Amino acid sequence: MTADEFKAQIARTYGTPSLVIDLDVVDRNIARVQALCDSVGIANRPHIKTHKSPVLAKLQQEAGAKGITCQKLGEAEVMAEGGLDDIFISYNILGEDKTGRLGALLGRVNVMVAADNPTTVAGLPHAAGIAGRDLPVLVECDTGRKRAGVETPGEAVALALDIASKPGLRFQGFMFYAPEDAVETTQSFLDTALAGIRANGLDAETVSNGGTPNLANLGRIKGITEHRAGTSIFNDRMMMRVGAAELEDCALTILSTVVSRAGPERGILDAGSKTLTSDTGGDLDGFGLILEHPQARIARFAEEHGFLDLAACNDRPKVGDILTIVPNHVCVVVNMQDRYVTVRGREIVGELPIPARGMLR
Amino acid sequence: MTADEFKAQIARTYGTPSLVIDLDVVDRNIARVQALCDSVGIANRPHIKTHKSPVLAKLQQEAGAKGITCQKLGEAEVMAEGGLDDIFISYNILGEDKTGRLGALLGRVNVMVAADNPTTVAGLPHAAGIAGRDLPVLVECDTGRKRAGVETPGEAVALALDIASKPGLRFQGFMFYAPEDAVETTQSFLDTALAGIRANGLDAETVSNGGTPNLANLGRIKGITEHRAGTSIFNDRMMMRVGAAELEDCALTILSTVVSRAGPERGILDAGSKTLTSDTGGDLDGFGLILEHPQARIARFAEEHGFLDLAACNDRPKVGDILTIVPNHVCVVVNMQDRYVTVRGREIVGELPIPARGMLR
Repeated sequence: MTADEFKAQIARTYGTPSLVIDLDVVDRNIARVQALCDSVGIANRPHIKTHKSPVLAKLQQEAGAKGITCQKLGEAEVMAEGGLDDIFISYNILGEDKTGRLGALLGRVNVMVAADNPTTVAGLPHAAGIAGRDLPVLVECDTGRKRAGVETPGEAVALALDIASKPGLRFQGFMFYAPEDAVETTQSFLDTALAGIRANGLDAETVSNGGTPNLANLGRIKGITEHRAGTSIFNDRMMMRVGAAELEDCALTILSTVVSRAGPERGILDAGSKTLTSDTGGDLDGFGLILEHPQARIARFAEEHGFLDLAACNDRPKVGDILTIVPNHVCVVVNMQDRYVTVRGREIVGELPIPARGMLR
Repeated sequence: MTADEFKAQIARTYGTPSLVIDLDVVDRNIARVQALCDSVGIANRPHIKTHKSPVLAKLQQEAGAKGITCQKLGEAEVMAEGGLDDIFISYNILGEDKTGRLGALLGRVNVMVAADNPTTVAGLPHAAGIAGRDLPVLVECDTGRKRAGVETPGEAVALALDIASKPGLRFQGFMFYAPEDAVETTQSFLDTALAGIRANGLDAETVSNGGTPNLANLGRIKGITEHRAGTSIFNDRMMMRVGAAELEDCALTILSTVVSRAGPERGILDAGSKTLTSDTGGDLDGFGLILEHPQARIARFAEEHGFLDLAACNDRPKVGDILTIVPNHVCVVVNMQDRYVTVRGREIVGELPIPARGMLR
């Protein structure tokens, strides 16, 4: 079967725009990250925000992952329902509705959470009380990304002591999402914070770092015990740009049909911002890489229209052509659809649901 | 009940980030568009890509809408399932899988489609054959937006004749999505195209224009018979910027919790790009308007983190505060969630599912 025939077969069976993952590449990506973690003795705790599928999370666990990471409580609930039982929710969980749900979850599976402020910490005993067991809490620390995370080791120690003082909470350690160029800053932060808690009779069982690009730094920060990589299971244009992946490591593509060619230098894809999203991947040119026409630019979007700029293309697609797109940012693209089409090479395997899609709460 | 108590009640019941619509404002917006259309004798065919709910589509129909507009076949299938029976799919439908589904749909309800090229037209008789009835087809015409649509009246006439020559297809008329400043260009295009088809023994029963901002042009293009407005049911920051809506016309807000305040001039919302999307609304500053802190900027996103820049705020939110956000572009934000929380003023009505969410195919 030719590549064109295979694309036509997928389009005929599932329609376009379709989210296609090659399980051979997925398997390879999972094995590669596990081997990297094993080689430096760091536990692998992949972030499921990328794939949002308990089936894929179990593949990661079977390959050797210690547990998984979720960003939202709703994702964790779906993963627990799907049979995953060691879950880190790397997020401040706030509000009685959420701490109540967290308590129910903690009653069923092993859960750790992160916190970077006393308000979050003050709410968490509610969850432990419901579960009737201790809730392990990591202090989220920032070393340059300016997202969440306390900014100084002193604040980290103070929050660790606050956690340790609360009924039902156990201070579990520290969480970083360190910028890739912040190895030394992070080491220094961690060393100071560890000294601070040890002077107060505490210790850190878990020190977690994250990010697919940070796999390149694996083992360089002494004291890290776990790593959370998400995108590495599929990879995307962002990962290619930072050198964290090659094209052959990209497991996920969008199949999209050219639906209009109203002008000689332009065309329209049936994948718009409701499929590919307006995520620029930071500063990538255009909204995806079209494998058949790498000179074509996905210049802008309407909701269901991808505007193709074909000015730089010698060989231009025609109406009805099916194109293969590597998206800028795979995590947000997965979140647009309810299922994957799964393939191995040029063989269709079937469909795989994405039950944690849209689990924002 | 104070505004703060009401937000807390919603958060406690449904969690954040929540998609909240005020049905009083929805009713008013629906009535306003219908009255505008009635006042100039143009049929109202609202675009459901904004709300993706058959329940809301029926409210539009009960208010006087002639039918509805969908962008994708999958949306139309959900609407037909929900009881809507006069549907215009304003999109080139391509591929045997889709023309087969279109045929099944046409067998159940009244459907019209758009086409801007002969490849699309060549595939459509398949649908008519399955349905055993004629499929009405509009020629999509472009007068400046450079999205889909033939670029000249001559091409429009040629495609109309092509449609009329095909078994099972009926040439139904013309479709525009005219730029707001292209009233004269569109009038001239339409007049020439109408003369061209009439010289060939055809006529246009339907001439459709679209867009919420174009409601300001309603009645100014002679020959338009129907209007497709989508965003007007909810409105958003984009509509406020172009003067198509005031703040009190915005029926949809996102309730989001402040989950981190790690630095004095910054904070984190639990609504990131997987909730508010990276849609800039063209060139709006930041990714939403925070009603409680209009000087706060939603500066950038991680997937589940909204980065608040609070430098310009005197009164700054604290961790746990629940904020009310008018999004840049409401249509893409609705597409992120499975249900609305519905309210009337400060009373919770309940939840409303969004079954056409993610219907991309």
